[in-house]
Amino acid sequence: ITACAEIPCVSQPKGFFFPSCCPPDVVVWPRSVEEVSALAKICHHHCLPIIPFGTGTGLEGGVGAVEGGVCFSLRNMDRVLDVHQEDFDVTVEPGVTRKALNSYLRDTGLWFPVDPGADASLCGMAATSASGTNAVRYGTMRENVLNLEVVLADGTIIHTAGRGRRTRKTSAGYNLTNLFVGSEGTLGLITKTTLRLYGVPEAMVSAVCTFPSVQAAVDSTVQVLQAGVPIARIEFLDDVMIDACNRFNSLSYPVAPTLFLEFHGSEKSLEEQVTVTEEITRDNSGSDFNWARDAETRGRLWKARHDAWYAALALRPGCKAYSTDVCVPLSHLPQIIVETKEDLVLNRLTGPIAGHVGDGNFHCIMVMDPNDQDEVTRVQEFTERLARRALALDGTCTGEHGVGLGKRALLREEMGPMAIEVMQGLKATLDPKNLMNPGKVL
Amino acid sequence: ITACAEIPCVSQPKGFFFPSCCPPDVVVWPRSVEEVSALAKICHHHCLPIIPFGTGTGLEGGVGAVEGGVCFSLRNMDRVLDVHQEDFDVTVEPGVTRKALNSYLRDTGLWFPVDPGADASLCGMAATSASGTNAVRYGTMRENVLNLEVVLADGTIIHTAGRGRRTRKTSAGYNLTNLFVGSEGTLGLITKTTLRLYGVPEAMVSAVCTFPSVQAAVDSTVQVLQAGVPIARIEFLDDVMIDACNRFNSLSYPVAPTLFLEFHGSEKSLEEQVTVTEEITRDNSGSDFNWARDAETRGRLWKARHDAWYAALALRPGCKAYSTDVCVPLSHLPQIIVETKEDLVLNRLTGPIAGHVGDGNFHCIMVMDPNDQDEVTRVQEFTERLARRALALDGTCTGEHGVGLGKRALLREEMGPMAIEVMQGLKATLDPKNLMNPGKVL
Repeated sequence: ITACAEIPCVSQPKGFFFPSCCPPDVVVWPRSVEEVSALAKICHHHCLPIIPFGTGTGLEGGVGAVEGGVCFSLRNMDRVLDVHQEDFDVTVEPGVTRKALNSYLRDTGLWFPVDPGADASLCGMAATSASGTNAVRYGTMRENVLNLEVVLADGTIIHTAGRGRRTRKTSAGYNLTNLFVGSEGTLGLITKTTLRLYGVPEAMVSAVCTFPSVQAAVDSTVQVLQAGVPIARIEFLDDVMIDACNRFNSLSYPVAPTLFLEFHGSEKSLEEQVTVTEEITRDNSGSDFNWARDAETRGRLWKARHDAWYAALALRPGCKAYSTDVCVPLSHLPQIIVETKEDLVLNRLTGPIAGHVGDGNFHCIMVMDPNDQDEVTRVQEFTERLARRALALDGTCTGEHGVGLGKRALLREEMGPMAIEVMQGLKATLDPKNLMNPGKVL
Repeated sequence: ITACAEIPCVSQPKGFFFPSCCPPDVVVWPRSVEEVSALAKICHHHCLPIIPFGTGTGLEGGVGAVEGGVCFSLRNMDRVLDVHQEDFDVTVEPGVTRKALNSYLRDTGLWFPVDPGADASLCGMAATSASGTNAVRYGTMRENVLNLEVVLADGTIIHTAGRGRRTRKTSAGYNLTNLFVGSEGTLGLITKTTLRLYGVPEAMVSAVCTFPSVQAAVDSTVQVLQAGVPIARIEFLDDVMIDACNRFNSLSYPVAPTLFLEFHGSEKSLEEQVTVTEEITRDNSGSDFNWARDAETRGRLWKARHDAWYAALALRPGCKAYSTDVCVPLSHLPQIIVETKEDLVLNRLTGPIAGHVGDGNFHCIMVMDPNDQDEVTRVQEFTERLARRALALDGTCTGEHGVGLGKRALLREEMGPMAIEVMQGLKATLDPKNLMNPGKVL
């Protein structure tokens, strides 16, 4: 290992999807924040890159050691600390995943709703500003992290809202918590996160509904939100995605734009939510309703959505997948989805679409043969066109996956050079030797 | 005017409540972001402090020119830009107040719910991370600002989420938006803010309810939140405050701990919210219910809460008032309120209590004779004791008013020296000459 930032990982093309393996030189498994701090001090002294590692479920290559260095695997710090039932908060160490937390909370009547799909670690979800299907109702990690314990590049330990603090709101100084949320390991190692919890809803109802067009599905979504229905999930699948799900799970949904819905609340409030939503979707020519109330039927209904990634992969056995992640204002969704589907057809690409339509965020699951360089290039060009299409419509190149390795050039286009300079200034202040997860984000 | 930071405002004691007038040397009224930028460049070149000014309704002396300099009054930039009804967002210039925006939105079916009481400018509310009575349901400015246009100390213009971007979520780079929200004018001048809007609720119901103890009122609040009731406002007034309101408005509420409640939703959902809440409050010995459905009766019912500040002032004509602002986890509220009330009695101080109990945030409205130095000193000592009591209970010295001039020492205790050093580093990066609103926050 040599001095900082001297070994760029030369095998990495710009904007790649399948980072060739970039292993670190060393992996450490600290068991406490004191050990993390002591190890960081050693790295700092010797100018070694530090790569934080939670579960490795991120989608943008955030854990690749592109400049070598020391991987900090935080899985051995896995305690759930301080559940405060009356205050709706909990503090967890970085080895705790969202499923482990919710299982731990089972008897408290509380849960943590942010659900990016993978069973990611909660500190990793904070680091990447994760969200997922429940964000339309419960917000993203940005809205649900109350405090972080962070080890900076030089080993300094800070608490972003002050040690042990967990108020539901604060105006005390700069919002350091949300500076580290979404910083993708480039500003510090998150060793503890304090999260907001929610009461487990009394009841849930799920539904699936088919539409004649993307526009009709999006119009329904806007009207449901406008009507004040506190919908918990509202997910869009395009015809190609539904077709893939049908094949993968032997289902028979109509091959058309489809919404998967979920409602949380009391029995009475669900009744009303369902009535209003049904009325709105019918007015927009929604049809072939499927409703599910008990847990088992709900599970079966949503299985199609949950398995979307695997259903897409199964379209072309032996292929690999990369997910795009643009997000636009709701009113621009029909246009961008229609144009994107035309682009896919024109360029002979497999990219079924699934999206968190209530947030304006959707994914094309690009299935491709990683050994077919021509196809990989076409996917890369498509991905950049899609991102620029989103940027032209007031959108972002990443709604929830982060910038990682592949979207740095797009981030510059999105933010403008002056805002990038501000970000670089913040990075240089907190990590002047550029040791924290180098090569990512900026 | 001389060089930067050379004229401390010597007349200011540390931790004061009534800043003696600290006028700037010059006031400018720019009409566009280009003019703001050009003026900032001149200030930067000549090392003149820059003090952003919205409506001057802040409570922590944030607009005082403690080192002289140039006050940027932004009231002439007062356009509402780009209402996007389908996307639930709007962009406003810094002269637009929250009441002006809601009046502008009247025919759209949308509104902006954050309500700190005063008719503050929305960019000022972003700068101070304001919240208020609706935060328990709709969040604070932190959760409702999508993008900011900011002029930095050297005149550089940036857009914190990229120019014109307004997606409901994003993971694109560092969260600059929430670095500037709550920075109290010390990092830049906010010249535009893009805000989330909400559908106007179909109906509203208000209620007032009396409790035998602070504990009973807080227990009701926790249980209402645990039951998943999407309550819009839940405000606590102590017996002293209620007594003051009775006198001020010729009312006859029982002189006891009291909750003021407001529910938003459809007719049906209101019915259920009200039933559940009534059950919970009765189980906690709540009594003397008053309910109001139509706008006029609701207005009359809430008038007591809305006039709390003036009712407190009327307790001692000729006196002035300062509001404390601590916030603690919900479960610690009864203890801190009971101890604080004992402290008030013991020290012969007038400090009726009103609080946003759903967030754990409450205010003692300290009414005092500004010419009675002994009383002013006792209030100051009380305020510091109260803040330290909150800090000892995992709380913050400021839930929504900000740090301003008076809470800098407390902020240091709250955050710890290392986090303060990080904040100072960020400040030095963005404003190396310390020109932006000097003497505030840090």
